[in-house]
Amino acid sequence: MSRNSLQSTLAEATSGVMLFSITPPRRNTAPERVKEIAEITVRRLSGLDLDGLILYDIDDESDRNADQRPFPYLPTLDPAAFHADHLGDWDKPTIIYRCVGKYTEPELSGWLTSADESTTLGVFVGASSGGKPVRTSLRRAQQLHHDIRPSLPLGAVVIGERHARHGDEHLRMLTKQERGCGFFISQVVYDLNESKNLASDYFYACQEAGIRPRPLIFTLSLCGSPKTLEFLAWLGVQVPAWLATELRQSDDPLADSRRECLAMARDLKAFCERLGQPYGFNIESVSIRKAEIEASTELAREIAALIRTPPDADVFVNAQETKALRTS
Amino acid sequence: MSRNSLQSTLAEATSGVMLFSITPPRRNTAPERVKEIAEITVRRLSGLDLDGLILYDIDDESDRNADQRPFPYLPTLDPAAFHADHLGDWDKPTIIYRCVGKYTEPELSGWLTSADESTTLGVFVGASSGGKPVRTSLRRAQQLHHDIRPSLPLGAVVIGERHARHGDEHLRMLTKQERGCGFFISQVVYDLNESKNLASDYFYACQEAGIRPRPLIFTLSLCGSPKTLEFLAWLGVQVPAWLATELRQSDDPLADSRRECLAMARDLKAFCERLGQPYGFNIESVSIRKAEIEASTELAREIAALIRTPPDADVFVNAQETKALRTS
Repeated sequence: MSRNSLQSTLAEATSGVMLFSITPPRRNTAPERVKEIAEITVRRLSGLDLDGLILYDIDDESDRNADQRPFPYLPTLDPAAFHADHLGDWDKPTIIYRCVGKYTEPELSGWLTSADESTTLGVFVGASSGGKPVRTSLRRAQQLHHDIRPSLPLGAVVIGERHARHGDEHLRMLTKQERGCGFFISQVVYDLNESKNLASDYFYACQEAGIRPRPLIFTLSLCGSPKTLEFLAWLGVQVPAWLATELRQSDDPLADSRRECLAMARDLKAFCERLGQPYGFNIESVSIRKAEIEASTELAREIAALIRTPPDADVFVNAQETKALRTS
Repeated sequence: MSRNSLQSTLAEATSGVMLFSITPPRRNTAPERVKEIAEITVRRLSGLDLDGLILYDIDDESDRNADQRPFPYLPTLDPAAFHADHLGDWDKPTIIYRCVGKYTEPELSGWLTSADESTTLGVFVGASSGGKPVRTSLRRAQQLHHDIRPSLPLGAVVIGERHARHGDEHLRMLTKQERGCGFFISQVVYDLNESKNLASDYFYACQEAGIRPRPLIFTLSLCGSPKTLEFLAWLGVQVPAWLATELRQSDDPLADSRRECLAMARDLKAFCERLGQPYGFNIESVSIRKAEIEASTELAREIAALIRTPPDADVFVNAQETKALRTS
């Protein structure tokens, strides 16, 4: 199947974007090891039917939650530097996250000036809590993008949980869109209703405003252990109570969360297609455990196969129909 | 397939109960018309693979909600009288609802004494609001059942929305169980997470108490018009915002709600089977419109086929697998 590049898919606001996200290695990693990690990563991801790679920018978010962080915060390499220095073999576009509050205006301006549009897209992330001192505000960073490099595709983060609490996340999306954001990437999704409420409210707000809805990319992450479940909660991800219980009770939470992630992806795909809302998926691993990272690659393979399935063919059939087909 | 009777399925707390519920005709209906309605109903339901019929007992619930009732309240025939006088041709068990607050103790005692255990089961329903004056309280009615006729299978109502608000519906279930209730029938379900949270909390509370979980029967009802959607809201049914919007926007809300009811049934079946929670389904039509009532019969046919599918065979296959099967 021939497909458009990530940039043109996003520019034209069509559906079907498939992304994978990683966090750059820790800052104190030995240079040879960084090289090795990059090679392994590129090899692992090259086999997948991806449209692009996301490089996260990790901020110390201890302000967001007074509880102890289940996985330690460790400073990581700058995503743009890791991309430039070590991901030369990655031949698809890369979306560089920027926690803008960490950077001075000249730092952000410098990056905006030098970023290579043929390989790079950006996502600006605001501070993790209102009280946190920032070097550059999200609003100001978006202004710099507008002034310096409006042609660099810029995305924003959306949070279904914030929509559930305040009911205005779709309006924030419209504001970000006005300020130059051309696509949205969700935080990890585990509550289908929240995500569908957000997509629905955003779609109809665009319709009312007479503007075209931009692609909404849903992030899925496996949960292979009670510790990962704790970390999801710490990150503010709303895992429904029944599912949290099921994962805690499970002998194989990785398999159970994989089943749920696939079910959510099928449901979100069908819903967005009915609605007419452009969508995509992003697979990440919030956990640093090897088994969860490897299973994420498998999940990405399955979700990529799902996303490439044409809308009308993506039907659920129940066992009886399947059996009838099998025996016919 | 040979199956146990409704009574023994419920007594043994196994899964797979399939019910259909109707409201008796209005009290002012002409006797010949009542007879005709009964005949049509029995003919309509005989073709379905049901384990039993529910006859609702309608109370004037205007106290539950100050808003105007979207469908008018009209007194209906007594369900036990309608059953005895007109449903002689219905050859399967019937579950008679009793809004106990409507009845005096002698009335309830009389019914408990005379009910035919071979054809009849009961469900006692408490007052629709705390402030309502009652002739007999739910607690007292359960006591009468215990004293007069404990062998008559007795069920209770569960409400997922109450669980979402107060988080203790599973404990109410345990209390009702202690007081002789052997099965639970939900109000209309449109929020999957609420229903799964309730089933999960109930199951683990039983496990902790060392008692066997009793069957939990989920009620599904189509929503074929904005007016029915209003009525569901009036009844306290939580329809997720995205779905309410979709049904309001839809050219064919009946088809859309059918798709959602089937999807919920599949999900609840798979969930309860993983959990080990005995379950069943009940199809009702909250609407009095002909199209919605007829579509309910079709939904019951589909849900009955689903419920009779063995657990391991009930797999979702995606379009690719289906296509492969179709072309093989």
